[in-house]
Amino acid sequence: MSVSASTMLRGAHQVISAAEIDAKVKKGRPLRVKLGVDPTAPDLHLGHTVALNALRRFQDAGHLVVFIVGDYTARIGDPSGRSETRPPLSAEAVKANATTYLAQVFKVLDEKKTEVRWNSEWLAPLFRNEGADPRNTILGVLARHTVQQLTEREDFANRLKAGSPLSLLELLYPLMQGYDSVAVKADVELGGTDQLFNLLMGREMQKDMGQEPQAVMTFPLLEGTDGVKKMSKSYGNYVSINEPPAEMFGKVMSIPDALMWKYYELLTEEDLAAAKALHPMEAKKRLAAVLTDKYHPGQGAAARAGFEKVFSKREEPEEVAPHTVSRSPIKMIDLLLEAGLAPSRNEARRLLQQGAVAVAGEKVSDDRELTVHSPVLLKVGKRQFRKVLPAGR
Amino acid sequence: MSVSASTMLRGAHQVISAAEIDAKVKKGRPLRVKLGVDPTAPDLHLGHTVALNALRRFQDAGHLVVFIVGDYTARIGDPSGRSETRPPLSAEAVKANATTYLAQVFKVLDEKKTEVRWNSEWLAPLFRNEGADPRNTILGVLARHTVQQLTEREDFANRLKAGSPLSLLELLYPLMQGYDSVAVKADVELGGTDQLFNLLMGREMQKDMGQEPQAVMTFPLLEGTDGVKKMSKSYGNYVSINEPPAEMFGKVMSIPDALMWKYYELLTEEDLAAAKALHPMEAKKRLAAVLTDKYHPGQGAAARAGFEKVFSKREEPEEVAPHTVSRSPIKMIDLLLEAGLAPSRNEARRLLQQGAVAVAGEKVSDDRELTVHSPVLLKVGKRQFRKVLPAGR
Repeated sequence: MSVSASTMLRGAHQVISAAEIDAKVKKGRPLRVKLGVDPTAPDLHLGHTVALNALRRFQDAGHLVVFIVGDYTARIGDPSGRSETRPPLSAEAVKANATTYLAQVFKVLDEKKTEVRWNSEWLAPLFRNEGADPRNTILGVLARHTVQQLTEREDFANRLKAGSPLSLLELLYPLMQGYDSVAVKADVELGGTDQLFNLLMGREMQKDMGQEPQAVMTFPLLEGTDGVKKMSKSYGNYVSINEPPAEMFGKVMSIPDALMWKYYELLTEEDLAAAKALHPMEAKKRLAAVLTDKYHPGQGAAARAGFEKVFSKREEPEEVAPHTVSRSPIKMIDLLLEAGLAPSRNEARRLLQQGAVAVAGEKVSDDRELTVHSPVLLKVGKRQFRKVLPAGR
Repeated sequence: MSVSASTMLRGAHQVISAAEIDAKVKKGRPLRVKLGVDPTAPDLHLGHTVALNALRRFQDAGHLVVFIVGDYTARIGDPSGRSETRPPLSAEAVKANATTYLAQVFKVLDEKKTEVRWNSEWLAPLFRNEGADPRNTILGVLARHTVQQLTEREDFANRLKAGSPLSLLELLYPLMQGYDSVAVKADVELGGTDQLFNLLMGREMQKDMGQEPQAVMTFPLLEGTDGVKKMSKSYGNYVSINEPPAEMFGKVMSIPDALMWKYYELLTEEDLAAAKALHPMEAKKRLAAVLTDKYHPGQGAAARAGFEKVFSKREEPEEVAPHTVSRSPIKMIDLLLEAGLAPSRNEARRLLQQGAVAVAGEKVSDDRELTVHSPVLLKVGKRQFRKVLPAGR
């Protein structure tokens, strides 16, 4: 394995196979490294960048990225579950989404080493069933694959076992994705660990068409800022690559320490051993600064300084209004009310339950008692602060 | 149920539902009665005519037949089993097959009351996925149906249980057939009992499109001349509608008596009670004459006369050579050898096993002993006869 190849494998969960990639690299021509996306998520977050970072490593080693916009199927409503079909996207909406998507993608990828392709280019002809070779017609593709083969996919098998609906369109997705690989003659395809089956389908279909099969690499799913669930807009645990610098820095600082090394490995090019040698707080600030710099070049240091000014105990922000508690211990809802940070007990309870309240940088989500011995920072939401002072001081 | 409706249900195995058909008839407009065929079998036999006869009954009651040629999928190779894919039919071959097919179909159907449609008319646009309504795109159709729904079909379920391959194209066939019903706005669809699932799929898809769902009628599969297996060219037990009159008459005469009433019901318009009142031999000759007349108008009586001349005991054909047995009783193989009707014991045994040997018009298939008291006709194959005479006469 060459040094550059091992760099290209950074963070990969599974590689099938490293030897194949090495052999392909040794042929001397730039590899065609494929990533396909559905143009339905116009706001990219760090979870999306895991694969993009890996693609960038290939580009930096001289290879070509083939970035496939899945515009063909995006015009169909969400197939998951029969009753909850989403209205299909119009061709215009697909195009608008894709444009937004691509603008963000090129914050990570090198545009000059990227070939952007829309899969309607070959899927529309495939579905017209006019190809002389049946392997180039969707009916022919369907004739060459079995229900058994497709339902081997683990999540499909689980859903069938559980009796939860699996639409035929979902069943066909792997074939369409596999045909994408045939169409662009991919040498390598990248995807999340949940994509392994689909990536291997590309290999099979390329072999069936007499092409050299693509190597495949899967990458772990990135947990969000809660450290538990997959980063996703719908879980509210995401860091958008469009966040303003201070927000991005702050959100990265909020991840659990244990998750920090995974972020380092998958989201940066930093040396992991060097980072681990640092004090954890310093390591996390450095991670936050590197990521802020990546999406807001030159602004990582300022974001760090701003964060430290607000959140370090030693130097609280000057503009924070003081509030002297009426008693200590005091229950959280009473404190939020008397400090003027909530208009009602219900609102105060809601803020706690939503995780919007922090004491000395630690989230407090229940109506616990707080004993105030010394000044402590109380934060509600993103912008409201009180310097809480002991009673009778 | 009106009288005409009950006539139209003659021989049906299952009707869903008779009340629906009655209600549709009562609306007063001609019903659109659908039958779909794959243009891959250019030589029609009586088994194929079961549904055609039923369609003709609808036509005679004033309704319209919508005869659908499945040209769209016929261009794809046989999907059953992954390894044994047949080469796809060319568009020209499909057209030639369909032309041959239609010429034969109009020996049963009234051409003036038949609307012939080729399903490429709507399946080609469906597959282009350009419809504004996703229900008119194949991707949309796939999104609205689940694997579970399709694999409810009994033969599919059995194959999955048995681990034998089920191609995705096969899985999609019911949807394409169902969409045919949507496209032609069928009021009724007919098919074999093995088609029930596909016919009901048409009902579901019509409902989904806001159409009044079609009624469905299934017809039993017709056993061939062996009385055991489904009539099929590949079993050699078929009666082609293109057989010359004498062959057709003779083949019908060779069916087991027990099968005769089913032939009457499914292949003719004869009164069943009246036929059953006849002597079985007379009933069978009448059946054979009616069917011969149907496909060779006016030639039934001559075919019957010819048959009787050859096969009746009272008036044996003059040119039959006599053979006096060496002993009686005599075993069949010995008899065939000494009469010069078989060159060897093996060949004689083979002829018996194949059912090629008849004594006095009754098939003899084992090496039984024959006691010869009086002259008896021995027949081998279609053309060899001996008048067997008692020994020492």
